[in-house]
Amino acid sequence: MTNDAFGACPTPLGRYDRIVLGHGSGGTLSAALVKEIFLAAFDDPTLAALEDQATLAPPPAGHRLAVTTDAFVVSPAEFPGGDIGVLAVAGTVNDLVVGGARPRYLTASFILEEGTPIDLVRRITASMASTSRHAGVAVVAGDTKVVERGKGDGIFVSTTGVGFVPPGRDLSASRARPGDRVLVSGTLGDHGIAIMCAREGLELETTLQSDVAPLGSLVEAMLEASPNIRCMRDPTRGGLASALTEIAEASRVGAKLDEAPIPLKREVRAACEVLGLDPLYVACEGRLVAIVPPEDADATLRAMRAHELGRDAAIVGTIVDTHAGRVSMRAAVGGERFVMRLSGEQLPRIC
Amino acid sequence: MTNDAFGACPTPLGRYDRIVLGHGSGGTLSAALVKEIFLAAFDDPTLAALEDQATLAPPPAGHRLAVTTDAFVVSPAEFPGGDIGVLAVAGTVNDLVVGGARPRYLTASFILEEGTPIDLVRRITASMASTSRHAGVAVVAGDTKVVERGKGDGIFVSTTGVGFVPPGRDLSASRARPGDRVLVSGTLGDHGIAIMCAREGLELETTLQSDVAPLGSLVEAMLEASPNIRCMRDPTRGGLASALTEIAEASRVGAKLDEAPIPLKREVRAACEVLGLDPLYVACEGRLVAIVPPEDADATLRAMRAHELGRDAAIVGTIVDTHAGRVSMRAAVGGERFVMRLSGEQLPRIC
Repeated sequence: MTNDAFGACPTPLGRYDRIVLGHGSGGTLSAALVKEIFLAAFDDPTLAALEDQATLAPPPAGHRLAVTTDAFVVSPAEFPGGDIGVLAVAGTVNDLVVGGARPRYLTASFILEEGTPIDLVRRITASMASTSRHAGVAVVAGDTKVVERGKGDGIFVSTTGVGFVPPGRDLSASRARPGDRVLVSGTLGDHGIAIMCAREGLELETTLQSDVAPLGSLVEAMLEASPNIRCMRDPTRGGLASALTEIAEASRVGAKLDEAPIPLKREVRAACEVLGLDPLYVACEGRLVAIVPPEDADATLRAMRAHELGRDAAIVGTIVDTHAGRVSMRAAVGGERFVMRLSGEQLPRIC
Repeated sequence: MTNDAFGACPTPLGRYDRIVLGHGSGGTLSAALVKEIFLAAFDDPTLAALEDQATLAPPPAGHRLAVTTDAFVVSPAEFPGGDIGVLAVAGTVNDLVVGGARPRYLTASFILEEGTPIDLVRRITASMASTSRHAGVAVVAGDTKVVERGKGDGIFVSTTGVGFVPPGRDLSASRARPGDRVLVSGTLGDHGIAIMCAREGLELETTLQSDVAPLGSLVEAMLEASPNIRCMRDPTRGGLASALTEIAEASRVGAKLDEAPIPLKREVRAACEVLGLDPLYVACEGRLVAIVPPEDADATLRAMRAHELGRDAAIVGTIVDTHAGRVSMRAAVGGERFVMRLSGEQLPRIC
């Protein structure tokens, strides 16, 4: 796009401090938004060519393609430890890396509500750009739509990630086997509780930050320590309980958790008590659960703890050949109970 | 996912006729929505595996990767000739095929408003599934979020398309050269006017249908007739005027349109007069504009007219070495004017 498109005014976006319907028109205002915010932040030559599609290098020989997509509607859009932009990039990257893929490309589409401050769009785009660079992915395609006031809520982001899976990697939720150990990479529920506190104006002793982070380098370190890891999941919506139930269902095995070693921040434990929440269901956005053959569990744990994103990693359970498709937990105070899948809604719009 | 997850009730979704927040929770209700609607309609083994990412065959040797993304917020979600589901698939497929890519995979993420009828979600998903099958793409990954009543508007869909570009194809908006001819594949503005009429309750003499359609087979026929086509675009938001301006800017050339041969339905012409719209700016969703070397123009036109999606194709202009980055039009009644890029918003939420 040449500057001619904008006539004499050097920054046509500068005349607006809030999103108007014209920013989604496909005309001059759309072009200004794209150029002054998105192209400037993402700084990618493929994106800047503004073709209808990004044409990209294919995977190296022997690699498979991995694709994942997510919509993000978190409220509030900015929260302690992150914003919807970091969340979109990290969430999408993490869905790739837990499958053993190396993330390469990202697409982003925005649904903006009329009246949304342009500075908010700018800050969130900057977060996406820096998180993408940190995670080693290029934002190669995008789209923006604007809806009337009251037909959206500020900013929604949908991201799709494309990654390449190196030969020999075969991680799948269907590969858990009795005897395997269940590892988590850090404290549970920080993201969900940080959002709840921000939303409800709840004050904790300290400011709890979301754990949101892209986990590619942690996963690579884990796979180097133990190429036989059966599968990984990031326990987002629905928390550890849902992630583990999905694995138990897909592998037709049971999972037994031990409550005592499950890492929990003191503030999260306290907030869960006040709010009547079970931390097993609260979302993380920078943690993973891994199912690891018993002989590899210690090496994997050491590799996790040596990485800054896995310092609080712990072995929290075992895969068993009883109660297929279900998760049980031995309480710290004794006794065992089934951990049911979340049935209704616990924390709306947590991601 | 096994049936155990749903206990005794055979269709947990059956207890609901409208979307509730729990359908976006990541728990039992989410699983029911995914299984009973999305997996049933899209019927893809990769999607049905419910991993966090789809692992897929890479492009054949020598092919490049093509990726595109779009958010769809069209209102109303169902309109004469299509719905937001057809639109999402066709729009995304078309962004791939105009670059010469063969579409292969699609991802879909949904943002649903609490209270949206589940039957609407079901109909739209069925449309997406049948349009995908028709276009030869597999829906391999998806996501669903639910927002509170008044924070969305029924159903928003974001789709990302992944395609493979065969060796030797090099279509780009920067390749237009003076002397090239400008071809359109059919009547302009049918989609935009069909939406406007549906929205405003405007009655035309006949029921105008949206032109929405995936254009892969038309593009393959055109490239077979003329492998030297410089570039193609689908004139969606902003219409032919914006698509051609983007090409003129990217190629640093001018474009001269002739008004007389531009194909327009009588109803579209009439509605544009009543509504004060210029058909050059009205969106199509099943048309393309192609820039073709002069010696290939007739063969390309014949190939287009022989295809059911190109029956009304016409040569409507020429690329020139004057007024770089701009489009002019010679009116049917004589005289020439510049066709400016759309500046504000003409038809909000047309796609």
